[in-house]
Amino acid sequence: MPIITLITDFGERDGYPGVMKGVMVQYNPNLKFIDITHSVRPFGIREAAFILKNSYPYFPKGTIHLVVVDPTVGGKRRPIIVKSRGHIFIGPDNGVFSYIYDKNSSVYEIIPKKLPVSYISSTFHGRDIFAVAAGLISQNRKIEEFAKPFNHFVSFPFPSPRRERGEIYGEIIYIDGFGNLITNIEKIEGQGYFEIEGERIPIKSSYEEVEKGRPLAILGSSGYYELSIREGKASEVLGLSIGDEVKYVKDNP
Amino acid sequence: MPIITLITDFGERDGYPGVMKGVMVQYNPNLKFIDITHSVRPFGIREAAFILKNSYPYFPKGTIHLVVVDPTVGGKRRPIIVKSRGHIFIGPDNGVFSYIYDKNSSVYEIIPKKLPVSYISSTFHGRDIFAVAAGLISQNRKIEEFAKPFNHFVSFPFPSPRRERGEIYGEIIYIDGFGNLITNIEKIEGQGYFEIEGERIPIKSSYEEVEKGRPLAILGSSGYYELSIREGKASEVLGLSIGDEVKYVKDNP
Amino acid sequence: MPIITLITDFGERDGYPGVMKGVMVQYNPNLKFIDITHSVRPFGIREAAFILKNSYPYFPKGTIHLVVVDPTVGGKRRPIIVKSRGHIFIGPDNGVFSYIYDKNSSVYEIIPKKLPVSYISSTFHGRDIFAVAAGLISQNRKIEEFAKPFNHFVSFPFPSPRRERGEIYGEIIYIDGFGNLITNIEKIEGQGYFEIEGERIPIKSSYEEVEKGRPLAILGSSGYYELSIREGKASEVLGLSIGDEVKYVKDNP
Repeated sequence: MPIITLITDFGERDGYPGVMKGVMVQYNPNLKFIDITHSVRPFGIREAAFILKNSYPYFPKGTIHLVVVDPTVGGKRRPIIVKSRGHIFIGPDNGVFSYIYDKNSSVYEIIPKKLPVSYISSTFHGRDIFAVAAGLISQNRKIEEFAKPFNHFVSFPFPSPRRERGEIYGEIIYIDGFGNLITNIEKIEGQGYFEIEGERIPIKSSYEEVEKGRPLAILGSSGYYELSIREGKASEVLGLSIGDEVKYVKDNP
Repeated sequence: MPIITLITDFGERDGYPGVMKGVMVQYNPNLKFIDITHSVRPFGIREAAFILKNSYPYFPKGTIHLVVVDPTVGGKRRPIIVKSRGHIFIGPDNGVFSYIYDKNSSVYEIIPKKLPVSYISSTFHGRDIFAVAAGLISQNRKIEEFAKPFNHFVSFPFPSPRRERGEIYGEIIYIDGFGNLITNIEKIEGQGYFEIEGERIPIKSSYEEVEKGRPLAILGSSGYYELSIREGKASEVLGLSIGDEVKYVKDNP
Repeated sequence: MPIITLITDFGERDGYPGVMKGVMVQYNPNLKFIDITHSVRPFGIREAAFILKNSYPYFPKGTIHLVVVDPTVGGKRRPIIVKSRGHIFIGPDNGVFSYIYDKNSSVYEIIPKKLPVSYISSTFHGRDIFAVAAGLISQNRKIEEFAKPFNHFVSFPFPSPRRERGEIYGEIIYIDGFGNLITNIEKIEGQGYFEIEGERIPIKSSYEEVEKGRPLAILGSSGYYELSIREGKASEVLGLSIGDEVKYVKDNP
């Protein structure tokens, strides 16, 4: 039972992801669909890339991951298939796959006219190209039948924190639905704390270690420190947005 | 593996669609559920009809489509089953199936007391009637065992555009989650443009053909022209709502 | 095909429920996932308990219900498995299972270090503990291999209405997405009405029995009276919130 995951910015209301699934089951009635999210911020390419980075490793090898955040659909950006790290990824070549490329990745450009479809719309390649490619791959059809190798794909680097003496300067890279502020700073050995606008935010290993409504930093499930408020919304209380700088201070630098 | 699609206005929060699925798997453990949407505007019968029109054709023949947008649940409106265009549709007789009827459709009224259930609530026929009917049909039970032919069903026409000399007057029939304004005007051969409050909106074949933030009209995935803003929300920028008139002007009438 | 239902407060945006499903399919590729809701109000333990009470009975015996509303994740609250009423429930011991316990329930504390995982985060036990336990149980592994009996679980009572002469005083216990105000008052034989701030709200058996925009009380699908507005939002019109008192008056006490 091949697994297809979906990440889109299509929202929950209009039925676009359901239509993509309809197209795919026509190719393979045994598909198992697992929605990751359809509520990526509209046109949020970096947000989609980050969600993909955090979700694909938890699926079995061979899973097909569809990522359709596609602000220039119908334009010059290429539709691609990526084989990387034992998984298959399908979507637009606009950077959504930036964090899954490595030296052993194979990338293919889908050739729309080789797909078994009579019409391709200008606005919904999720339905007319990507779902069709996923359907064909799930039938074990050879990728080379409808795609060709492609090497000049779009990729942006993951933002790295900057180290200065005993301090590490990172940034907010994602805000989740609880309002947790996810930084780009990975686990640091030794003692330290975050400092936000002069306020010291302690690093804790569980929310219970602070009072309700109080801030803490905690090593989050994606492997990065997150700034949180116990049973509150850090994004509102701390007033930080994506891209804002955060500072980690070592106790004994 | 029979496929059941779901369109409701139940929202994502209260668990009502999940309960319907629980009822159905009791009848057939092999069902494959595909959610189209549960976020139809509350009581939005025309909106549900339009989403159904755009989604059902992408599913295999024989798919069962549940549409539960049902403001007069428990009242006099009939629960019905429709066989049309090779698909099966189940829901209230309030117009949600308006756009799928044709000369060859068969319509049946469900007879609740013939369903194998001990209790039918006044407020949740999605669970107590429609899911049960879907479960029975997925078992290949004969529809005539729990429903009878019915011909006086509710149906409203799809709104047609009006032609006057070189101009076509249509209306906004749907606004999607990106804020795209979907009109009722289908593909027109030849050159032309839309005119909204004196502003000329060009027809393009991809979003990239205009600058970010600029308006365009594009033939959308449902086969109708849509008014859009590249990487923006046309509904907010153009200030149009469902039912508002739009004008298409031919260059050489 | 074992069924897993999911109730969380993770929201629709960040992909956390999808990741849990990825973990589970690694244990059992034949799982059928049915989402009940991921939009429980953040940290809404009582809300989750009520949704679970209303949804689990509609699933086949043997279904596994994951409930991850877990404000003190990573702290001292225990991860538990409950066998009750023929179903299996997995989640934090914080009261989410209050309404499913009975005299025959068996409760087990999960022992994280006996789970076949290399790392358990501080913030996402849904992925690192609960999904793993669900995966193991779906393989028919013995619960005793990774959990031990536990009896001091957290449970709060369902709020009972209070009777005084011919009046019954209850409270609003849930507000659904339509704005219906669900009370804790079950079906009452005989005639009567609700009285809210001096206004008499009649009890009806269908929405159609009042004009659009008018209030009514109706016996809802969960077995409790609900205050509703026909094609409107009772929560806004009547201005009531969870916990607010409601009064039922018998006609002939």
